[in-house]
Amino acid sequence: MSIFNDVESSVRSYCRSFPTTFEKASGYRMWDQDGREFLDFFAGAGTLNYGHNPDDMKWALIRYLTNDGVAHGLDMQTGAKARFLQKFKDVILEPRGMDHKVLFPGPTGTNAVETAIKAARIAKGRDKVVSFTNAFHGMTLGSLSLTGNAMKREGAGMSLGGDVIRMPFCGYMDDEMDTIDYFERTLGDPGSGIDHPAAVIVETIQGEGGINVAEYDWLQRLEGVCRKYDMVFIVDDIQVGCGRTGTFFSFEHAGISPDIICLSKSLSGFGLPMAVVLLKPDCDVFEPGQHNGTFRGNNLAFVTATQALDRWTNKNFENHINGIAKAMEAKLKSIIADFPALKGYHKGRGMMQGISIEPAELASEISAAAFERGLLIETAGAYDEVVKLLPPLVLDAKGLDKGISILHDSFAYVTEKHGLDGSKNTSNVLDIKSRANDKRSSA
Amino acid sequence: MSIFNDVESSVRSYCRSFPTTFEKASGYRMWDQDGREFLDFFAGAGTLNYGHNPDDMKWALIRYLTNDGVAHGLDMQTGAKARFLQKFKDVILEPRGMDHKVLFPGPTGTNAVETAIKAARIAKGRDKVVSFTNAFHGMTLGSLSLTGNAMKREGAGMSLGGDVIRMPFCGYMDDEMDTIDYFERTLGDPGSGIDHPAAVIVETIQGEGGINVAEYDWLQRLEGVCRKYDMVFIVDDIQVGCGRTGTFFSFEHAGISPDIICLSKSLSGFGLPMAVVLLKPDCDVFEPGQHNGTFRGNNLAFVTATQALDRWTNKNFENHINGIAKAMEAKLKSIIADFPALKGYHKGRGMMQGISIEPAELASEISAAAFERGLLIETAGAYDEVVKLLPPLVLDAKGLDKGISILHDSFAYVTEKHGLDGSKNTSNVLDIKSRANDKRSSA
Amino acid sequence: MSIFNDVESSVRSYCRSFPTTFEKASGYRMWDQDGREFLDFFAGAGTLNYGHNPDDMKWALIRYLTNDGVAHGLDMQTGAKARFLQKFKDVILEPRGMDHKVLFPGPTGTNAVETAIKAARIAKGRDKVVSFTNAFHGMTLGSLSLTGNAMKREGAGMSLGGDVIRMPFCGYMDDEMDTIDYFERTLGDPGSGIDHPAAVIVETIQGEGGINVAEYDWLQRLEGVCRKYDMVFIVDDIQVGCGRTGTFFSFEHAGISPDIICLSKSLSGFGLPMAVVLLKPDCDVFEPGQHNGTFRGNNLAFVTATQALDRWTNKNFENHINGIAKAMEAKLKSIIADFPALKGYHKGRGMMQGISIEPAELASEISAAAFERGLLIETAGAYDEVVKLLPPLVLDAKGLDKGISILHDSFAYVTEKHGLDGSKNTSNVLDIKSRANDKRSSA
Amino acid sequence: MSIFNDVESSVRSYCRSFPTTFEKASGYRMWDQDGREFLDFFAGAGTLNYGHNPDDMKWALIRYLTNDGVAHGLDMQTGAKARFLQKFKDVILEPRGMDHKVLFPGPTGTNAVETAIKAARIAKGRDKVVSFTNAFHGMTLGSLSLTGNAMKREGAGMSLGGDVIRMPFCGYMDDEMDTIDYFERTLGDPGSGIDHPAAVIVETIQGEGGINVAEYDWLQRLEGVCRKYDMVFIVDDIQVGCGRTGTFFSFEHAGISPDIICLSKSLSGFGLPMAVVLLKPDCDVFEPGQHNGTFRGNNLAFVTATQALDRWTNKNFENHINGIAKAMEAKLKSIIADFPALKGYHKGRGMMQGISIEPAELASEISAAAFERGLLIETAGAYDEVVKLLPPLVLDAKGLDKGISILHDSFAYVTEKHGLDGSKNTSNVLDIKSRANDKRSSA
Repeated sequence: MSIFNDVESSVRSYCRSFPTTFEKASGYRMWDQDGREFLDFFAGAGTLNYGHNPDDMKWALIRYLTNDGVAHGLDMQTGAKARFLQKFKDVILEPRGMDHKVLFPGPTGTNAVETAIKAARIAKGRDKVVSFTNAFHGMTLGSLSLTGNAMKREGAGMSLGGDVIRMPFCGYMDDEMDTIDYFERTLGDPGSGIDHPAAVIVETIQGEGGINVAEYDWLQRLEGVCRKYDMVFIVDDIQVGCGRTGTFFSFEHAGISPDIICLSKSLSGFGLPMAVVLLKPDCDVFEPGQHNGTFRGNNLAFVTATQALDRWTNKNFENHINGIAKAMEAKLKSIIADFPALKGYHKGRGMMQGISIEPAELASEISAAAFERGLLIETAGAYDEVVKLLPPLVLDAKGLDKGISILHDSFAYVTEKHGLDGSKNTSNVLDIKSRANDKRSSA
Repeated sequence: MSIFNDVESSVRSYCRSFPTTFEKASGYRMWDQDGREFLDFFAGAGTLNYGHNPDDMKWALIRYLTNDGVAHGLDMQTGAKARFLQKFKDVILEPRGMDHKVLFPGPTGTNAVETAIKAARIAKGRDKVVSFTNAFHGMTLGSLSLTGNAMKREGAGMSLGGDVIRMPFCGYMDDEMDTIDYFERTLGDPGSGIDHPAAVIVETIQGEGGINVAEYDWLQRLEGVCRKYDMVFIVDDIQVGCGRTGTFFSFEHAGISPDIICLSKSLSGFGLPMAVVLLKPDCDVFEPGQHNGTFRGNNLAFVTATQALDRWTNKNFENHINGIAKAMEAKLKSIIADFPALKGYHKGRGMMQGISIEPAELASEISAAAFERGLLIETAGAYDEVVKLLPPLVLDAKGLDKGISILHDSFAYVTEKHGLDGSKNTSNVLDIKSRANDKRSSA
Repeated sequence: MSIFNDVESSVRSYCRSFPTTFEKASGYRMWDQDGREFLDFFAGAGTLNYGHNPDDMKWALIRYLTNDGVAHGLDMQTGAKARFLQKFKDVILEPRGMDHKVLFPGPTGTNAVETAIKAARIAKGRDKVVSFTNAFHGMTLGSLSLTGNAMKREGAGMSLGGDVIRMPFCGYMDDEMDTIDYFERTLGDPGSGIDHPAAVIVETIQGEGGINVAEYDWLQRLEGVCRKYDMVFIVDDIQVGCGRTGTFFSFEHAGISPDIICLSKSLSGFGLPMAVVLLKPDCDVFEPGQHNGTFRGNNLAFVTATQALDRWTNKNFENHINGIAKAMEAKLKSIIADFPALKGYHKGRGMMQGISIEPAELASEISAAAFERGLLIETAGAYDEVVKLLPPLVLDAKGLDKGISILHDSFAYVTEKHGLDGSKNTSNVLDIKSRANDKRSSA
Repeated sequence: MSIFNDVESSVRSYCRSFPTTFEKASGYRMWDQDGREFLDFFAGAGTLNYGHNPDDMKWALIRYLTNDGVAHGLDMQTGAKARFLQKFKDVILEPRGMDHKVLFPGPTGTNAVETAIKAARIAKGRDKVVSFTNAFHGMTLGSLSLTGNAMKREGAGMSLGGDVIRMPFCGYMDDEMDTIDYFERTLGDPGSGIDHPAAVIVETIQGEGGINVAEYDWLQRLEGVCRKYDMVFIVDDIQVGCGRTGTFFSFEHAGISPDIICLSKSLSGFGLPMAVVLLKPDCDVFEPGQHNGTFRGNNLAFVTATQALDRWTNKNFENHINGIAKAMEAKLKSIIADFPALKGYHKGRGMMQGISIEPAELASEISAAAFERGLLIETAGAYDEVVKLLPPLVLDAKGLDKGISILHDSFAYVTEKHGLDGSKNTSNVLDIKSRANDKRSSA
């Protein structure tokens, strides 16, 4: 029995999808203890946008350590922190005309989200926050209340949601319903029973929720509703920011200006825990010490994060991302066309793309088949029905080709196994709709 | 204007107490950008028990980085994680007869607390959790509800507490009231209006709350109440564990066996973000993936944490801590005796000690005076009335003498400044009682 | 200064619409202390369906009092209660094939609603209840959480809604959205963030909400959703039951079979406080005494309620209601046609009808003008934009003609006053849409 | 099978203690359908302080009905209401120097409590309300949250208490703890985790909770705490007001001046549903219509309530109550002395007295035995361990003697039955303490 089975909690999860023990990693590749190589199209769930162990960051880190640089600094002033702040201002904030303040909320995404909604509630003096169907914002109580996934919500062991108003995300009912119209109607109607919210929090692309893309127009209208009804507009850019869609923030092309922005995951560049909340000055409302946390000052992360910002000083990196993204989309659509029985459709934008398939269960089988073939790839969506590609942004054409080739093989294997290539009947697989209903009926 | 004033959020706090920019650190000493040296009796609020940048950990880290070890691993299996788990089992769990499972909840203390109460609620199917007066458990919504501090609670921007039952901590009313008797009476009385809780969460010494020590007998009786009323017994050992009181867990001499234990802060040994929740098997209730988080697999922290556990393979480290603790207590009592006007009394145990003074405001002035003299020292308590000593456990006799000497000078300076040495009147200082009342009356 | 102004709370409301002091009442007429007569098209907000002081009930009451019948009986068995239960079973339950149990929850509507949702939560072991936009269910905390009106919700002095999921009522977005489709989608989607509710509570016509009619088809589909997702289906028939729509229950023609039904208002027949909750056997889940209340046994109400049930032993009463309702609809549509500037449209069913007008403010002016002319009539809707007719069901053709005539005059007066007959400009009146927005923007 | 068993909900309760069907009642006597006479020492749980069907009220009612007086008036002005308000002002408010406003909140006690806490929350802009152990305030969600009884709380079908802070009532820990000191300590301590409450609600004698008497000194200190910390001081005088303790309000001898007072039960004098909330002007904070309810204008109750106030125009009634109360106390103490095995002790004040016995179960047996012998008497307390006397205040010496005689016989019967007179062993009866623990342990 491995030490993991012996000692670790039952909650562990990804290790069940990728059942080996990794030892070494570089760029978009990982190696396990037996030296077997894997293409990593998962990238720490979006944490390793710059790839594993980028050389410049690694050596900056080693140099800092060797010099006895301050490793842990709470929220004290350190040289490493000063250098990060200065560069973040110079490379990110100023060129985009942003006057947001930078708050270090504890080094994880859920810390950033919790801090964002606390600030919004204080700023507006109201307690309700609007969150969307299929949203994912984290696992601590405040963030979990905002999250849509039923299994994760049940993990609270208590009833959630007193402070959250749930609204349908862009396209939730396809063309049947204009979701912004509906939201606005409830706000404008004093009899709607929807109390005036303090804030709206949204992901521009719902990663965990199934790579659901919010259209630019929808985001603009959403911002308009926030302005009209005096609500703080929060973008959770934790998974989809830091370049994933081709720009540093995911919403740059949408032409919106969120009041609060949450960043984490790829912010440190090296996979080290780090998060920031960007607050417009009127949302920078905390008293000194009113929000704190032990690991706000992870100075090793400041060192690598500062280094990572170099990528954003010219357009080369953006151009690279957009080129790979375009190629990826074409290749995925080709896979969809090759396996019509899976009713696949393409989802996503930038280097966050996927294929939604039916029956949903097969997505996990495809992921497993890909792992067997040396590709790390995950699923997403309420039914885990989306095969999700989230490779490091440093992926090159060769790596993409190789990954797509394995993915194609995996689709072929699973299709054949279930007789979905036409040779057998398919009575043993359920469709998405019936599963949904079964799930709740038996709850 | 510094970059901090320019860009960083108003919430920053410790940097206001220690107004310089630090660059380098080693053992119990730090240096700022001008090369000025400080004794660190604050230790990252208990995160740097093993001192800054311990040599063995530092080089283990550099070696791991150089070899392209996996830096970020979500909850996948890595060699670094395996090595940590094996050593934690061998050095900590097995010698103490503990069969707890290890859950990685996200790398911060508040993540550990949130996970602990989620597990407890699921395990018991009830939602109320008992927390104590002056408790500190973190800043995310679930943990903040458990925390006592009014200013921090107001930071939520909303009303807290629906899921928390507040009980008086050990000695809360001095001898006027047996707090365990009262707690048990409300549980046994079906008319008390105190719903049957799922769990009790307690710090054995309340650090932020003012270095309030729970007596061993009180902890044993509390455990007895948990057993009698079928409640999960949770110890938050985040600040006071990892050796602070002379043993790895703070409660080893109390002879109790908590169902769930939260560790973080000094766990990684190097100040890197890391946390674990230890769960007795019947509290290991999550489904795979039901609780997750991006930075559960901070492998750099696993590397240093594994190294740190070497300190616990024999009794030398414990003996050192106990020796310094004893000396510290004697010296603090001597200071108390030298400044009777401050009505000081000694608080704490192990290497977490302090002096509660009156008027409360002067504690912060003493901290400021100590900083001026090259000593980093913080305050604690509901009124910040406690001068709190939390030095690295690697502090030696020479460092202790030097720190105490500065502290003595700081007491003298502040006492004289306010004429509390008898030479002037004291009408400009308020007593604790009146401030408390003022605060609430004007809320 | 009247005693009312002198001593009574500022909360009093209807007395401001109808500023006189009433002394006597009979059928559909009331007289004030000066002997002035009013037509009552308000009927105690639906409490006096059988008119004021019906002769048979009045003398049954006098006889009971004279004989020293038990007036107050808590939930003890009394002859008066036995007679009511027997007749309610014989006349209402059995002919409709209903095996519901009768629970006396305290003598008001809000008591009935609170009891219904308590029973539903116990029955299903879940805590969320679905309520609709513009719903009105009462003013105690549980009922108020279900209610939509913002001003009344603010009366709670605290944030509401942790246990309520708000869904759009029938026709809420006109044709833009199928509200049942949306509801069902959120239930079937495990990522929707809408937790599995225990129950759905609905008014078949929203009286206070603006006489919004749920179509039969919508109610049937709603019942279907309740069955599919195992939720208790609750109909709040407090205002619209007891004959208001032509049948005893408002939903008899819809062909649905609610699990729980709330009745109050006209149940006693005489305006005396009384309420019942009808529970299908599997919803009759309380332990003895688990819900109680001092005035469950208002025996004077049992006496008149028993008498009132005589109306339902043949079809005459129903036929009368339907005849008057039909005539009322024709006459209201005629008024609408006569005053096109008010953009009126007809709302309602049975003897609960109204005219929605624009600008909303004028509805209250019409009500005031009608009062001046001897007609008591109220407004409804989120903006009080609906002139609402709720006369006693015993209204005859002569009374209807007279009331409609006054209403017509009042429309004419208000139209002319504001120059909406074409003679003046109308820049001083706002439209509904802009008010809604204003309201929230300034909140 | 009776119609009650056939049709009525399982929740019915008192009818199980008193299994007969009552038909007629007068003064302190009731008769069932077989003409059997009972002494009523229960008085509608305190609703019939003036006895059943007092002659003056009865004829006032018949006269009003015969004249077609308005029966139901919502909150419109009626002559009956004007006459009540004038007399309430003249007889109750003015002589006591009270400038409280009168709010009609719906005709039940729980409506009054819900309204009181809403007003308090609005007045202070805070949401927490302090309630005490073993409190009883009603069954709707807001009131139930304030109530202590576990079985009734479980009737909510959901977790309660987010808005309630529970404090120990006077004498809760006997002499072990000063409950006001503890309350005040938590308010004055900014680290206590007890948020600043909007209000405190208290019964001066806890009726349902076990006839627990708050000492005058305790009430005065409680009022002092309310003043010091700017909290609304609410007295729930629903069961213990209207003369029960010898004065109209229960707290007149305590010398306190509550901001809000809730009255109901005996207010109408005839057992008719009626309630008022008395609000000091600064607590009269609702907008018109912000709290409403159908049966606020139960005019028949106004007629009898006006009549009832005649009792309070001179001291005769008070003198009568005090005389009977004194005699009752002596007789109860004599019973206690006669049955030492039941470890009885006397509880209560005025005409609300009882005997707490051990083992608790026997109290219900005594009540049953009394019923068999023609005496209606109930139990109270968390374990139903108190035999509770709550006779109409019009009880005379003869009635008291007769009732006490039956009670004595019932004690004797039960004592002998269980061998507690010394003749048998008692191993089959449990003591209170063990039951309490058992209950929760098995929850």
